[in-house]
Amino acid sequence: MEKNQISLPVDDLPKKWYNILPDLPEPLPPPKEPDEGPSRLEFLAKTMTKECLSQESSSQRWIAIPEEVRELYIQAGRPRPLYRARRLEKHLKLKKTRLYYKREDLSPTGSHKTNTALAQAYFASREGKRVLITETGAGQWGTALAHAARLAGLECVVFWVRSVYDWKVDRRTLMQLLGAKVYASPSKQTRMGREILARDVNHHGSLGIAVSEGLEYTEEHEGSVYCLGSVLNHVLMHQTIIGLETIKQFELIDDQPDLIVGCLGGGSNFGGISLPFVGEVLKKKRECEFLAAQTMASPSLLKGRYEYDFGDVGEHTPLMKMYTLGHKTEMKPIKADGLRYHAAAPIISLLRHRGIVKATAYPTDERAVFEAAKIFLQCEGWLIAPESSYAVRAGIDEAVKNEKIGQEKAICMNISGHGFLDIPAYKEKILS
Amino acid sequence: MEKNQISLPVDDLPKKWYNILPDLPEPLPPPKEPDEGPSRLEFLAKTMTKECLSQESSSQRWIAIPEEVRELYIQAGRPRPLYRARRLEKHLKLKKTRLYYKREDLSPTGSHKTNTALAQAYFASREGKRVLITETGAGQWGTALAHAARLAGLECVVFWVRSVYDWKVDRRTLMQLLGAKVYASPSKQTRMGREILARDVNHHGSLGIAVSEGLEYTEEHEGSVYCLGSVLNHVLMHQTIIGLETIKQFELIDDQPDLIVGCLGGGSNFGGISLPFVGEVLKKKRECEFLAAQTMASPSLLKGRYEYDFGDVGEHTPLMKMYTLGHKTEMKPIKADGLRYHAAAPIISLLRHRGIVKATAYPTDERAVFEAAKIFLQCEGWLIAPESSYAVRAGIDEAVKNEKIGQEKAICMNISGHGFLDIPAYKEKILS
Repeated sequence: MEKNQISLPVDDLPKKWYNILPDLPEPLPPPKEPDEGPSRLEFLAKTMTKECLSQESSSQRWIAIPEEVRELYIQAGRPRPLYRARRLEKHLKLKKTRLYYKREDLSPTGSHKTNTALAQAYFASREGKRVLITETGAGQWGTALAHAARLAGLECVVFWVRSVYDWKVDRRTLMQLLGAKVYASPSKQTRMGREILARDVNHHGSLGIAVSEGLEYTEEHEGSVYCLGSVLNHVLMHQTIIGLETIKQFELIDDQPDLIVGCLGGGSNFGGISLPFVGEVLKKKRECEFLAAQTMASPSLLKGRYEYDFGDVGEHTPLMKMYTLGHKTEMKPIKADGLRYHAAAPIISLLRHRGIVKATAYPTDERAVFEAAKIFLQCEGWLIAPESSYAVRAGIDEAVKNEKIGQEKAICMNISGHGFLDIPAYKEKILS
Repeated sequence: MEKNQISLPVDDLPKKWYNILPDLPEPLPPPKEPDEGPSRLEFLAKTMTKECLSQESSSQRWIAIPEEVRELYIQAGRPRPLYRARRLEKHLKLKKTRLYYKREDLSPTGSHKTNTALAQAYFASREGKRVLITETGAGQWGTALAHAARLAGLECVVFWVRSVYDWKVDRRTLMQLLGAKVYASPSKQTRMGREILARDVNHHGSLGIAVSEGLEYTEEHEGSVYCLGSVLNHVLMHQTIIGLETIKQFELIDDQPDLIVGCLGGGSNFGGISLPFVGEVLKKKRECEFLAAQTMASPSLLKGRYEYDFGDVGEHTPLMKMYTLGHKTEMKPIKADGLRYHAAAPIISLLRHRGIVKATAYPTDERAVFEAAKIFLQCEGWLIAPESSYAVRAGIDEAVKNEKIGQEKAICMNISGHGFLDIPAYKEKILS
């Protein structure tokens, strides 16, 4: 029998995260202060945990995953299976291309974001913090942090862009069931929020405002820490658990991927599955290509410039060298909200700059990506997140391309999350 | 490190289903014809697959799971992990009681129903059928059959009680994305549906009408087969994959359950986890107790009479000897719709009659069970189906009771499904 599910024994869950910083082909350009305003580096340092701050610029290649975090990973269902997509291959009539996918959709909150949320919550707890603060746009990150805070016995406060907060009622309910305080941003909880509401009581908010509110709240509440869900080096490092498991799983079946495909907004799931493979490519230990699937709403790696920019609209972060569309760019709303970000993580940007990571982008009507998700559902049986459908679309497109070339090739797609809370989007895009 | 997740290697997925019929303490009373009307036995035989009909009364103790079905089980994520609920134990301050739970919520459609749907679809396909027909109430069964039909390359037609069809839009969308034709019942697809609609165009339907429509449709469309999702012997047998895995998982950690708890409507998830253990109890190979958690909306095992009754309101099934409240009983609406059924499966009823299965029931306001689900979410991190929350409630109650007695005891709860499509119910029951 050909088994489509490649599972890794619980005991084989990796014991270390992979930090790519010392292996990069050139030193990562450090974050910088802007010319004006208060020190962003000091501010960031003040609101983060010491451990994450230290990991952010560590030169240590392997960083031990604390036993407590490994236990939490196992509690959250890790290791997650890798699948050979034989049913999809058959549907696409592939003869030369082997398709695989990694199942981050099995996460308790529905996305890969738990991998860093659980780690950040643990470090905060170890440093005596009591409250985790964050902002959220699409809601995946807020849910993951609410979950992690609860499991660590901490409180959680989420500032959620009002225009999303208002309609994603189920996701809001889930955060609240997990015990989080969820505020529509702009909120009455902060000076900034109150000022904005005084001018416009119906202000629909923005990610920039939500970040500002979160940071102000963190500064004014002792024992609290601000948590970020993407872009930063330590976040991508926590996510390497995905790729490290995947390497072991390919070893189990004596195969290896020639191409890894992931969707990319800020870069955390893409970095998570790719970086352990990239590290081995850089050391000439393997050959593999990497493709980021983006939305034309924010095709940072394709249309952006590689330059220093803020990580947020509100200019609270230091300047980071990234492929960026500009931190004030307006982006068209799409169903895969998680991909709407103006820039790519510094590490991913450097790899793009050096030609190691390639990128593609799909139109904002999203018909093509939802169609791919439907094919995936009907063949493989799993309902995936709108974001993940970009990875599947790109994986299918690359497979079809490869069939014309006729080379033996293995493609691995990362399924970053499930779609059970995104069914209305499917209805709109597929059934109407 | 104490690992909370007990996973079973894919290769150890059981190769046979367990058929308890030959091991029952007395022969199962056979289904009977009612005094009036057409032959129900012939009718049932005509609409089912030959294989399922043969399994229904088989005296063979172990029935091989076809390799193709094992592949589908693996595709659908089997084997599923067993968890030690150490975090919940800690929250409840348990000293003597070990709590475990089995993860059927990891199913692609969100419930254990796939275990029999995949088998039935395979048998239908092998017998040259082209269309799977069914009725659905809560929607879990319709979704599972839509999924299984798709994976087997068959069509699927679901008659869905209109009052549920109208508001469970997401679940309907999921069935449609899987390619199923979903009709609100009463529908215009059948003579019976048209007659009812002619009298009342806004008729809200009933499970009885949906069954009747499904059966009429099956009779009139060649190549179609009617599939049932609970109650019948072969359905419970397909579900024994749950308990058979669980036995192996307990062996892996050198422990064994003293009590197994599952929620019970018709009895398919309860039978699935329990029957393999019951079989060993009957052969004096182990000691274990079994507790069914019901709703006071339909407490068949507690308040019902053990007598011959129809399986459906519309009187299409043969008479079966069951604990029944009467097939015409009106049942109060609850969020855990999957538990609203007037009777318990014949096998479970016989075991109840012989004192092997015990039962409890929770009030229809469902506050207590949703509260248990919230505690479970906050401790263990998983959002479970409203139905499953009955099992968790009963598991917690039994654990607390046992602490007072002070005996060493292991309790295993079956988590029959996830709650991602039931978040509005949580909002109503917990947050309002």
